[in-house]
This record gives sequence, C-alpha cells and structure tokens, in this order.
Amino acid sequence: MTTPSLPPTLDSLETPCLLLDETRMTRNIQRLNALMAGHGVQLRPHLKTPKSIDVARRVMTSPQGPAAVSTLQEAEQFAAAGVTDLLYAVGVSPSKLDRVLALRAKGVDLTVVVDSIEAARAVAARAAMAGSPIPTLIEIDCDGHRAGVQPDNHDHLLAVANVLHDAGCLRGVMTHAGESYGCRSVDAIADMAEQERWAAVSCAETIRHAGMPCPVVSIGSTPTAHFARNLDGVTEVRAGVYVFFDLVMAGLGVCSVEDIATTVLTTVIGHQADKGWILVDAGWMAMSRDRGTAKQPVDQLYGLVCDADGRVYPDLLLAETNQEQGIITLRPGSGASLPDLPLGTKLRIVPNHACATCAQHEAYQVVRPGEPGVVARWERFRGW
Amino acid sequence: MTTPSLPPTLDSLETPCLLLDETRMTRNIQRLNALMAGHGVQLRPHLKTPKSIDVARRVMTSPQGPAAVSTLQEAEQFAAAGVTDLLYAVGVSPSKLDRVLALRAKGVDLTVVVDSIEAARAVAARAAMAGSPIPTLIEIDCDGHRAGVQPDNHDHLLAVANVLHDAGCLRGVMTHAGESYGCRSVDAIADMAEQERWAAVSCAETIRHAGMPCPVVSIGSTPTAHFARNLDGVTEVRAGVYVFFDLVMAGLGVCSVEDIATTVLTTVIGHQADKGWILVDAGWMAMSRDRGTAKQPVDQLYGLVCDADGRVYPDLLLAETNQEQGIITLRPGSGASLPDLPLGTKLRIVPNHACATCAQHEAYQVVRPGEPGVVARWERFRGW
Repeated sequence: MTTPSLPPTLDSLETPCLLLDETRMTRNIQRLNALMAGHGVQLRPHLKTPKSIDVARRVMTSPQGPAAVSTLQEAEQFAAAGVTDLLYAVGVSPSKLDRVLALRAKGVDLTVVVDSIEAARAVAARAAMAGSPIPTLIEIDCDGHRAGVQPDNHDHLLAVANVLHDAGCLRGVMTHAGESYGCRSVDAIADMAEQERWAAVSCAETIRHAGMPCPVVSIGSTPTAHFARNLDGVTEVRAGVYVFFDLVMAGLGVCSVEDIATTVLTTVIGHQADKGWILVDAGWMAMSRDRGTAKQPVDQLYGLVCDADGRVYPDLLLAETNQEQGIITLRPGSGASLPDLPLGTKLRIVPNHACATCAQHEAYQVVRPGEPGVVARWERFRGW
Repeated sequence: MTTPSLPPTLDSLETPCLLLDETRMTRNIQRLNALMAGHGVQLRPHLKTPKSIDVARRVMTSPQGPAAVSTLQEAEQFAAAGVTDLLYAVGVSPSKLDRVLALRAKGVDLTVVVDSIEAARAVAARAAMAGSPIPTLIEIDCDGHRAGVQPDNHDHLLAVANVLHDAGCLRGVMTHAGESYGCRSVDAIADMAEQERWAAVSCAETIRHAGMPCPVVSIGSTPTAHFARNLDGVTEVRAGVYVFFDLVMAGLGVCSVEDIATTVLTTVIGHQADKGWILVDAGWMAMSRDRGTAKQPVDQLYGLVCDADGRVYPDLLLAETNQEQGIITLRPGSGASLPDLPLGTKLRIVPNHACATCAQHEAYQVVRPGEPGVVARWERFRGW
C-alpha cells in the first residue's frame, strides 16, 4: 500500500504485474516510423497488442489514426478516445455489421474485411438497408496462413469485388503474411515481404484492370514490415507487436532481447534446491500459456529471467508454470550456475508473446531506465 | 443490441463469449459433495477456477466458506462478499503479509502456506510485529510437482513447524497432487490419491509426535478428490476445476465430455474450402493458449466443436488459433465429413482447460438446456 502522494517504486508494486519500459517502446516506435518514412508509405499500427489508449496515442502517427483493430470492442474504445480512421482487420461476420454501422454513424471511418462472396453480399445488403456504404477491403491469402481469397483466383477475386463495387463498398485489398513468423532468416523474411507485397499489389491491379477502383493496398506483419526491400504499390503497412517486441520476434532476428519493452515483475516465493528450482509468483495467469518460441531454434520455455532492473541472467528460464506459480531453472545443458535469489527477491520475466502476456493484465506499470519509480499506470481493456 | 426488458438469446450474444451450463455445473457440484459426504470429509472448493461470487455461492458448502484461493485479489473479493474461511493456497511472499493481516483484521480467517524456514520466519516476525498470529499450513511435496517440504525430511519439517509453533501460527499441513494430471488410468489416480493422503497424514503425525498440534490436514486435486479410496486422517479436501470440468479432465477419465459446463460461443466468419477449414471468431484470446490435452493420448488441439445447442460434431476440432480467429478442421485421419456451416453459424467450443479459458472472459453467460434464453450474466474478476 503506497502513499497516494508518492509514485510507487518497483518494490511497492504488488506482484505479479506488467512493466512497460517507455524508453524501449519509444525506440521501437521511432525505428518503424523511420523505416516507413524511408519507403514513403503510411503506417497503420495494429492496436490489438497494446489495447491501451495511452499506448495508442504514442504509437499512432496522429491522434485520429490510422490504426487497425482486431475486435469491435477495440474499435469502440479507440473511437471514444478520438481515433477516426480504423480498420477492423478480421473477417467480419454479418451479425457484427450493426455495431460497425453504429460507429460509422458517429463519424468514425471504420473499414471492414471480407474474403468471400457470401460475406460481401452480407455487407452490401446491410449497407443498402442502412442507406450508407460500408468501406470494405478484400482479404488476400498471400501465404496459406489464415483467411483470404487466393491471389491467382481472378474469377473469385473479381466476383467479390463486383458485389462490393456495386454496393459502393469496395475500398481495396489487404493481406497479412502470418507465415513470416516461421521464417528462419532475415533474407527469408524479406522474401516473404515481397510475396506479401506482390499478392496485394497484383490483386489490386486485377481489380483496377476490370474497371473498378482499388485505392487501398494494405499489407503487413511486424517481421515483413521491418525487412521489406520495397513497398511499390502498397498504400499502407500494418504491424502490431513491434511496439513492445518479444522473444518470438527476437528469435526471428527482428529485434534484440534488449529491445523488448514489456516484462512481468515477479517475486521469489520458494526454492526446491535439490531440483535446482526457484519458485516465483508468476504462473500462466501472469505470463499466458503462449509458448511461441517452442517452434524456434532456441526454445525460451515461458520466458527469460532478468533481475529487477532488467538485466538478463545467463540461461535462466521460467521453465514451467502453474496458475499462480512459476518454476525457474537453468536452461538444460547450461554451464551457468543458479544465482542465489533469496525469498522475496524481485525478478522480471521477458515473455514469448507480448500480445498474449499483456492480455493477462489490467494495466501497464510504466518505467524508464535510470528513474527509480513507476512513472505512470496505463489501463488496458479487453473483451469483445 | 438487445432490448433491456428481454433476456438475451444465444443469437443476440456478441461472440466470442463464455457460456456456462448451470445444469451441468450443479450436477458436478452435487457429485463431489456426495463423494465428500460419503468420506465424512469437509470440501474446501478452490475458487481460482470460477473467480465469480455467483459461482462461489453455489459451489461452497456455506455462504461463509470454506474455500481456497490462488491470489489475494480473490481473497479480498470473496471476503467482501461475506466469505470468512479462506486458504491462500500458494506459498506466501513476505511482501504479501500486510494484505493478509488487513483481511484478518476485518474478521476473515485467512490461512497462508509456507514450505521453508525462511518463509516461516517471515510469517512469524510479521505476526509478532502485528501482535496477531497468522494461521499457517506447511506445504508438503507429495509428488515432486511443485513446492513443498519433502515428506521424509523430518528435520526440515519439524524446523519449519517449530518456527510457526513458537509464533502461535502453526495450523497444519497441506499438499496438492498436481502430478495426478499426468495419470493414465483411474487406478493410477486412486494410487496418487493415496500417495497424497499419506504424505499429508504422515507429516501431521510427525508434527504431533514432536508435541505440536496439527489440526488441519488439507489435500486435494480434482482427479484425486474423485477417486480417493479412503481419506483417513484428512480433515479437508480441495478441488477447483470440477465445478466446470474440461477436456483435460475428460481425457483423464474424471468426467465425460457431457459433464463439461463451460464452452465458448463463436461465429463462423469464413471458409477455406480447398483446405477443409472453417474460420471462426474464437482465437486464442477467447480460448487461451492452453494445450493441456497435447500431453494426453487424445490431443484435442484447441477444443472440440459443438453446435449452438452443445451437441458435439464428430471429430471436428478447433485446430489452430490466431489472436481473434480460429481454424476448425476435421481431426487428422478422421473418416467424418466436414459439416456444412454457413457464414454466421453459431458454434460452441469445449475448452482444454476451464481455468485458463474462463480467465480470458469478463463474465459467464448462464444457460440451461431446454431454456431458450440466457438466464443470467455472472461477472468474473481478475488481477492480483
């Protein structure tokens, strides 16, 4: 319990909690902004990672956007905070169109995504009923990862485009190279970025060649956004997790561990010395069950362990998690020795996947290296 | 958007959301209550699974408890709702003792857990400073799964007990057979239950033989609670996930799929017909990243798919998840055929791990088989 007049210190925070290093976040934001400025392409940051108005204001290139969201709850929250240019970047179900129209009626330029004739017809019908077009992007499947129209299926693409165009709803195309998370080199990511660019740009050309406008060509993922060789024909790039980065991104070579801005602060609650275990109060409820590095060459289990100031211990991992307990051990085969971390010691855990770990928490405790206290508490929201 | 005067129907719920079948929950509660009554042993339900005052009132044997919690946030929330007999069942860190004392000062009989001399000394010192004993259980490691004093290390056990006893804080022993989740037969679970019982009872005897009182002998996990052959010497049994059950428990043989009370309601948002994929709006944000059945003989991936009324489709699984999208496919090698599920179809997903999936949601939408509407909305809480 801290005195209200004094900012909390790390020692006074209840653990587990989520720390955000504002200095690192700012550097990550500036880095991608500079890359996009070099390409002359607009960045549309994806706000599904932060789910926070305070972070959104820092990551967006203007207070009104543009930005991407993954739920209508995010769209509603950010719209209420003054963001007016939003892309709901998940295929829209017909039952969600009333909420889309309600936001548009408030002056929010909210765009939706479809990848089928059925979904295009549902959008067209609802827009006609409302007497108000719903701007829509056609999702293109650039890598077999998820949803989208196959880029070489011109008949299907044009059929979807025609339905939208006739309803005054066609705004463009979008794609997401989710498979870039499986790349094993920076060159492979750059190749994937080109594949992503080509899929979107060629589909836009196909639509234009058929006599329909296609003003928006939206692509992006954090890996491809950072290593794209060129973005010719692309009008905007989406990326989300780069604002914080995480061990999955470090494993891909997109960032270094020292760029990762969010960590979980935890407290040592026990030891099983004969097993080489240190027990902490960060379990899967604080970390999430995400094991994104399990598929990478270096498996970081549930995360890298740092001291309270964020210095990484060699080969010390959060190896296993129960709901509210984590087990720290040395990496199997490591030559490092287990540090002496008495009961009550505060540690930080660097997570596999920032989107998943942050979602387990209600707020960011904002810190800056070299400043002793917590400089701000930024609320997150959740739900749908 | 539903009219406030009418209860929502499944069709009017925003998806994804969490459904709770109250009839199944009640049956699960009654089943374990009857088993414990047969043993003549008090049940202390673990409220880390529901994190809901409405569910707590139904699962506890009295409005005042007893109950177990995994965080002090749970203890504070349930105490505010009138629960006065609580066990904080995770090893306590010294920095959390102020909150423990604050709850005790309000008349809540909150017990804590330690497994080392250092932690016992911290409790004893804080209790002495406050002039108020803090009742404490010594955690016993019955299966190498987590924390706890080794049951055959009598010197260590008695050293911890002595510190607590001298401070007036020794209340008993507790253990949790977390390894029961890895059992491969009901007989193996029953054997694990006996191992759990023996560890706790023999340690209590060791303490009593040394002249100290040990009134509480607390054991339990959902699997062992259901298959214990006898509970001689045990004073209370803890179990949590049984209130809802899940695919992990069904895979263990503790329940059937038809006993599982919580599911995620989702909507079909697309198809990739050539891949045999159905896309839905339940991704890992709605399901959690828990893959608890991955280690079981039958891997259920991210969950079993049911129709909107809860009837399971043969071999239809939520195979992969992105943040807000799930990919449904047939189980590899299945002879079943993919059902025709048009855009907008509502489905339910049965989760791997109820504790993890429920934690992704803000509330339970309560339904009863045979009744068309949602009969109640029960809020959950979270945080630490």
